[in-house]
Amino acid sequence: MPSDTVISLDAMGGDHGPPVVLGGVRDYLRQNDCTGLAFLVHGDEVAIRAEIVRLRLDDAPIRIRHAEKVIASDEKPAQAMRRGKGSSLWNAIEAVKTGEASAAVSAGNTGALMAISKLILRMSAPGLERPAIVASWPTLKGHTAVLDVGANVGSDAEQLIEFAIMGEAFQSAVHGVARPTVGLLNIGSEDIKGHDEVREAHGILRSGAVDLEYHGFVEGDDIAKGTVDVVVTDGFTGNVALKTAEGTARFISTLLKEALGSGLQSKVGALIALPALKKMSRRIDPNAINGGPLLGLNGIVVKSHGGATPQGFASAIRVAVNLARSDYTAKVAANLKRLDAVFDHSEGDKPAGETVQ
Amino acid sequence: MPSDTVISLDAMGGDHGPPVVLGGVRDYLRQNDCTGLAFLVHGDEVAIRAEIVRLRLDDAPIRIRHAEKVIASDEKPAQAMRRGKGSSLWNAIEAVKTGEASAAVSAGNTGALMAISKLILRMSAPGLERPAIVASWPTLKGHTAVLDVGANVGSDAEQLIEFAIMGEAFQSAVHGVARPTVGLLNIGSEDIKGHDEVREAHGILRSGAVDLEYHGFVEGDDIAKGTVDVVVTDGFTGNVALKTAEGTARFISTLLKEALGSGLQSKVGALIALPALKKMSRRIDPNAINGGPLLGLNGIVVKSHGGATPQGFASAIRVAVNLARSDYTAKVAANLKRLDAVFDHSEGDKPAGETVQ
Repeated sequence: MPSDTVISLDAMGGDHGPPVVLGGVRDYLRQNDCTGLAFLVHGDEVAIRAEIVRLRLDDAPIRIRHAEKVIASDEKPAQAMRRGKGSSLWNAIEAVKTGEASAAVSAGNTGALMAISKLILRMSAPGLERPAIVASWPTLKGHTAVLDVGANVGSDAEQLIEFAIMGEAFQSAVHGVARPTVGLLNIGSEDIKGHDEVREAHGILRSGAVDLEYHGFVEGDDIAKGTVDVVVTDGFTGNVALKTAEGTARFISTLLKEALGSGLQSKVGALIALPALKKMSRRIDPNAINGGPLLGLNGIVVKSHGGATPQGFASAIRVAVNLARSDYTAKVAANLKRLDAVFDHSEGDKPAGETVQ
Repeated sequence: MPSDTVISLDAMGGDHGPPVVLGGVRDYLRQNDCTGLAFLVHGDEVAIRAEIVRLRLDDAPIRIRHAEKVIASDEKPAQAMRRGKGSSLWNAIEAVKTGEASAAVSAGNTGALMAISKLILRMSAPGLERPAIVASWPTLKGHTAVLDVGANVGSDAEQLIEFAIMGEAFQSAVHGVARPTVGLLNIGSEDIKGHDEVREAHGILRSGAVDLEYHGFVEGDDIAKGTVDVVVTDGFTGNVALKTAEGTARFISTLLKEALGSGLQSKVGALIALPALKKMSRRIDPNAINGGPLLGLNGIVVKSHGGATPQGFASAIRVAVNLARSDYTAKVAANLKRLDAVFDHSEGDKPAGETVQ
């Protein structure tokens, strides 16, 4: 049976390699309709085959593509680019470039994955120096896409609008939101607040130059409220916000454990309330929302956490499949074209966003 | 008895005015050694006197200075500057300028307080466009000072170092840390990470050009860990980080309430664990750490939350007294002078930090 969607997997990335990657395939296949879907798995053939046997995946739509090399989790991006050719990570991306696969998933090191993806696939968003990373942030209403939480530290207006375009299409494709609302992260809701770049982007988004549902400025506390479906910010602010939120969640859960662990009465209370507390931690479990796509490339690449469980890797696969089977690519291309009319990309025009390695 | 420290209070600011301000004085006096301390209270004399009677403060070291006008909580900074003269807020600051008081505390609207403080006292830190606001952030180890969480949205190196100088002196004066460690907020710990401004400030701080204990770069999750005593960042990033943390805390506490309120078993568990949970919320109670000084002025001004309780206002008074009685001012002046040797402030040199109203 011919498959219309092939997902290319780097079996050697992450802390655990093939057991988690193939375990993710098993979990994904169990939970989803897989008609027309196939996996192209790159890495050590013996190790992959052993996992297929162990997990009873003999009948699953899996093809193995042996790769000798593995990119180490601590390998620097520059080195990975030099010696990465022929590695499982490289080949997984290459399959997207050649059209053999519709999307790639890797739990390999972020820097190497970004550098190699950019090298092989090239950027489609002219304002970006490197791929943007989107975080699926749990909120009171569901999930909000926040981007960039990665490495585009410049914040010029064009970058911000490109994030808006890609985040909106992502949220629609992956979380099934029909017409996602988009907010621009700022330190106040008035038009005069914030720095030049954020106010310029605000003006363009409000003018309707690109086709999306623009809500206006939002503030830090609007993220977890779920005020909008997509929160747009530069990679510096987004990364700080994400890590600050993670730190706050860890701080509160430490205090909570201390509070419930001190004194017999509290311990008994905690025991009784345990099922409810477990339900809460599942809501904020990173494995449930694993799978951050690298946006702005000519092709779909999804990054899984290095420490993801099989269930977490299955979530990353789900993100890749949903993106590949949606109108994500066409929608982004159409809106980027609209943006071209606003920012002139004539010869020699370099993106203004300031970025560093 | 002559008093060596006079604290000037705006009795009319905040959501509740005199009851909370005078209630704060009572709470402060109950909990602290008040030898040589006096309060100069500005606002409606009748209302203030009524509170003094109600709270049995007749013997307290309080002088009343009647003011006709009150600045409204929604008054725009520009309007407050035009018509603010003679208001309780204005007079409270003016008393610091004339030397009658050592410090001022107001729960009035932040924009008006910043504008009028800057107008009357002027900036002492040459890189700042407006006063910096420091947040006392609860951490696993105690409190970390994070600044700027206010309105200096530019992030040039000079501003960042001025924040470091003032935050370090603040943490030492208010939280009694002998030699506070200082970290610069970034998106990674390597020297090559981040934008130009943050790396320039990193280089200067590491060179030892100013006298403080520089730790190096820290990330968002280091704040709540208490990795350093002072976290330095631009007003845009700091404001987003603070509000994101507040949003995250509210999100988790909502989930927690839902989790513990669903089902009889959880409800019973919650009831039993209640005292411990209450102890935890006190740890993250904003009233316990109320009192954000406006830094970078020629004089000490402390902002209280508009909705603070009397106990919260007492915390703000404590911050003002501690700053006034410490070597804060001298320490900052000495380090700013050292910084002068790095950044040339010759004639016509405008601060490079980009800021907006």
